[in-house]
Amino acid sequence: MTVAETAIWLKARDNFLILTHRRPDGDAIGCAGALAQGLRECGKTAYVLFNPETTPRYQRFVKDYWAPDGYNPELVITVDTASYDLFPKNGKDYIDNVSLCIDHHPSNTLYAQSTCLDGSCASCGELIYDILLSLNGGISAITAERLYAAISTDTGCFAYANTTANTLRIASLVVEAGAPQKELNRLLFRTKTRSRIKIEGMVFSGLEFYFDGTVAISTITRNMMKETGASEDDIDDISSIPGSIKDVLVGVTIRELTSERDCKVSVRTGPSVNSNDICARFNGGGHAMAAGFSLEESVSEIKEKLLRILPDHIPKS
Amino acid sequence: MTVAETAIWLKARDNFLILTHRRPDGDAIGCAGALAQGLRECGKTAYVLFNPETTPRYQRFVKDYWAPDGYNPELVITVDTASYDLFPKNGKDYIDNVSLCIDHHPSNTLYAQSTCLDGSCASCGELIYDILLSLNGGISAITAERLYAAISTDTGCFAYANTTANTLRIASLVVEAGAPQKELNRLLFRTKTRSRIKIEGMVFSGLEFYFDGTVAISTITRNMMKETGASEDDIDDISSIPGSIKDVLVGVTIRELTSERDCKVSVRTGPSVNSNDICARFNGGGHAMAAGFSLEESVSEIKEKLLRILPDHIPKS
Repeated sequence: MTVAETAIWLKARDNFLILTHRRPDGDAIGCAGALAQGLRECGKTAYVLFNPETTPRYQRFVKDYWAPDGYNPELVITVDTASYDLFPKNGKDYIDNVSLCIDHHPSNTLYAQSTCLDGSCASCGELIYDILLSLNGGISAITAERLYAAISTDTGCFAYANTTANTLRIASLVVEAGAPQKELNRLLFRTKTRSRIKIEGMVFSGLEFYFDGTVAISTITRNMMKETGASEDDIDDISSIPGSIKDVLVGVTIRELTSERDCKVSVRTGPSVNSNDICARFNGGGHAMAAGFSLEESVSEIKEKLLRILPDHIPKS
Repeated sequence: MTVAETAIWLKARDNFLILTHRRPDGDAIGCAGALAQGLRECGKTAYVLFNPETTPRYQRFVKDYWAPDGYNPELVITVDTASYDLFPKNGKDYIDNVSLCIDHHPSNTLYAQSTCLDGSCASCGELIYDILLSLNGGISAITAERLYAAISTDTGCFAYANTTANTLRIASLVVEAGAPQKELNRLLFRTKTRSRIKIEGMVFSGLEFYFDGTVAISTITRNMMKETGASEDDIDDISSIPGSIKDVLVGVTIRELTSERDCKVSVRTGPSVNSNDICARFNGGGHAMAAGFSLEESVSEIKEKLLRILPDHIPKS
């Protein structure tokens, strides 16, 4: 469905339940909040299915819309959710009954009865903006706040390669409509906890370089987590550090989870190396530039194994 | 002068020399490059006075416009330069002869014969965009690239509190006009050198907190620069770190320059504290949330002085 068709579809119906995806990011949460708010402003009943994995910093965008116990929706809508695998546990019951999916992932499996998909959007929020504009003729300051959260988080505050002129245009309109951008930027991008600063300092000083600086390996031990008091929120996105260093082609982060022999490994690569291929050798996978695997071995054992196979994957210069 | 008046003024004249400021940032360099380019597209002769402090990453935006030896301009224009103190050494000769200053610093001392000033702009680049649009009816892809560098660097890729809806709108138009935004974002915001990583690690571990964690002070010594091999480019924007920590109201970075008794101090504050007021006490200045001053004293002496006056500026909770 097009944006206009989707708006007409929504206008003709009522009693919606909106679903987000597993480990919901700012785009999923912001879109769910904005869509619920926009539908309510249009006189509809709309709730968001509670997602227990919502992190504290995103709560404010969605907490007013959590569906009460016993809410019996007529129609289920998913946002930013490309496939069944990404449904949250408590959303599995709705899997065969999704009326509408609004998404920006080109990989969307078209599992819903109707899909409003635009793979050229950097964030699902851009699509929701257009739909709500069509539906209500404008957006309120509250909706604008949710949309700013969605658009800005999915583009790393407009720095990621997915950002387009249209992303910036919509961001400008959303700020114009009253999104408290200064406050949100501070909350979402410019605030690091003291624990984050401490653990980042440790990661920076502990970085190891191999193969003429084309491989960088960082380690996050259980001790580091304990010593710095860092939470999961604090180490969000920390695995992008090794790969963001000049001349590094493969950035690896090895993290101890429940024990010293339970490690999660994240691999980030530039366009010349395939992360997925590297991780496949350890029964893991993911995308071409970001993938991962898990091993029940120690950090030093994993490092040794990686260093043995990495030369196969790095282009000879 | 207004934007339209400035465009008319430029159109009626010729043979310009554009000056940037000491330790030029992306905004100064991007504006100089864009203005020179835009003037040339309008058939004028325009050069930029060579600035030896231009860091490698900004060279590409300005190197085509460096004035040749013996260039004899009719008119001198400064961009992004608030006062005489900020003139580069080789620009001092022009101090009494600046015909036009284009700037966005509210603290501008109005030293030029004419000034086009808009303190509401996050970057001087936004003002140059409007002037060039007025002058040429549009902007070329080359001009757009320079303007994107100016606007994005002065707003921390649209994350700083100075960013407005208008900043985002102009950024969108500049990308639309052909600025290679993906490439520039990678170059300007998403690549860290190994020296940068090392010195950032040192800054993180060396942070000191005062007044219940509302003040954070970081120090960059000459030794740290030497030990990490960090260049000016590597420490670009490093003074934003202390102010980006949760609950910090005043973030201070003290940096040793030519000697241990030649320090530059950068102050970054949230909305509840005025950076300019703090720096004014040391004969410095700047914006409400970002200002600075210089003192010929040691780091520890400066720290002591600051800690004595800071309680006057922090709101009692």
